[in-house]
Amino acid sequence: MSALYEEVQQFYARQMRHLDEGEVAQWALTFTEDGVFAANAHPEPFRGREAIESGARKTFEQLTADGVQRRHWLGMLDVEEQADGRVLAHTYALILSTPRGGQAAVHLSTSCHDVLVRTGAALQVSNRQVYRDDLPRER
Amino acid sequence: MSALYEEVQQFYARQMRHLDEGEVAQWALTFTEDGVFAANAHPEPFRGREAIESGARKTFEQLTADGVQRRHWLGMLDVEEQADGRVLAHTYALILSTPRGGQAAVHLSTSCHDVLVRTGAALQVSNRQVYRDDLPRER
Amino acid sequence: MSALYEEVQQFYARQMRHLDEGEVAQWALTFTEDGVFAANAHPEPFRGREAIESGARKTFEQLTADGVQRRHWLGMLDVEEQADGRVLAHTYALILSTPRGGQAAVHLSTSCHDVLVRTGAALQVSNRQVYRDDLPRER
Repeated sequence: MSALYEEVQQFYARQMRHLDEGEVAQWALTFTEDGVFAANAHPEPFRGREAIESGARKTFEQLTADGVQRRHWLGMLDVEEQADGRVLAHTYALILSTPRGGQAAVHLSTSCHDVLVRTGAALQVSNRQVYRDDLPRER
Repeated sequence: MSALYEEVQQFYARQMRHLDEGEVAQWALTFTEDGVFAANAHPEPFRGREAIESGARKTFEQLTADGVQRRHWLGMLDVEEQADGRVLAHTYALILSTPRGGQAAVHLSTSCHDVLVRTGAALQVSNRQVYRDDLPRER
Repeated sequence: MSALYEEVQQFYARQMRHLDEGEVAQWALTFTEDGVFAANAHPEPFRGREAIESGARKTFEQLTADGVQRRHWLGMLDVEEQADGRVLAHTYALILSTPRGGQAAVHLSTSCHDVLVRTGAALQVSNRQVYRDDLPRER
């Protein structure tokens, strides 16, 4: 378990930093080509790396226009390796927002369920389900 | 140190998820039969697994009635293994609250001092002391 | 990578606990003798362990006078070991404040870029750059 647990922590640190810094192409590359990103806040999942990248770009451009810095913290990691090599990774995800010149605050509290796969040397997300704590679990 | 540090992180991820999801029997099993849970917010500690479970059940039922999702984050883990095999684990514990349909927010900032013991393959808490940052350390 | 990643997590847990508990001499010893602590909130960096200690003491005394408990959480750790043995460690840093008898809240959201070096058995910070999310990155 040992090496894997840290590998996932480090993977998430880099992945979410890409998102928060607006490196959306690098963010998208942390998903498989056919990766799926679903959330109980979205009517439909983003399907495929291209859709994931374009969704992230739109959000980042809006945040930049609004002068807001987002930070995604993943923590309370629970890792479970499957017999087939896939890795189930459950985290709590806390999203913070700071307006330029203003007060940092909690934006959202969520849970994140990932299926990670190994592609060459690297981990990638093949399926992500995010559940916002303020919304019903299922839609 | 290596394997132990991760093992404690993973233990906490599962333990607190049990609490936050209302799996109070599984939560209680993460304490020893004679486990003690003390807090500077409580006049008396919970003594024994049964008391710990019934306290958690009461709190969870109240939160459910109020439509509130709690999330307990443990972080900034400091682990120290004793000669006798017990593990001292110090963490910061951040508690977030999200009302259904409402805004997530910080509920409490606390410190947590655990004595962990190994029972068979698993870690269990034999003693937990929680200190809320808003209250005097000793009562 | 494995052992190092945990070592840095544990190092930060102890380092920031020293700061938050007002153990400023022990805090200062987590920096090299000629350590530098810069922030986009400060006109000039603190240069040298003595300046770092005296800055921390002044802040802690003010917080104590105000009855405020600060907690520094470092998370989303990204560790990169250099060929020369230095360790680049990037984290998100979340600062919480709790007034005695009052409500805990997010104080600041920041990013932290450290250069860590090994001195004997221990890690020390030789250079720390903190970027508050509410302020322009460069000054």
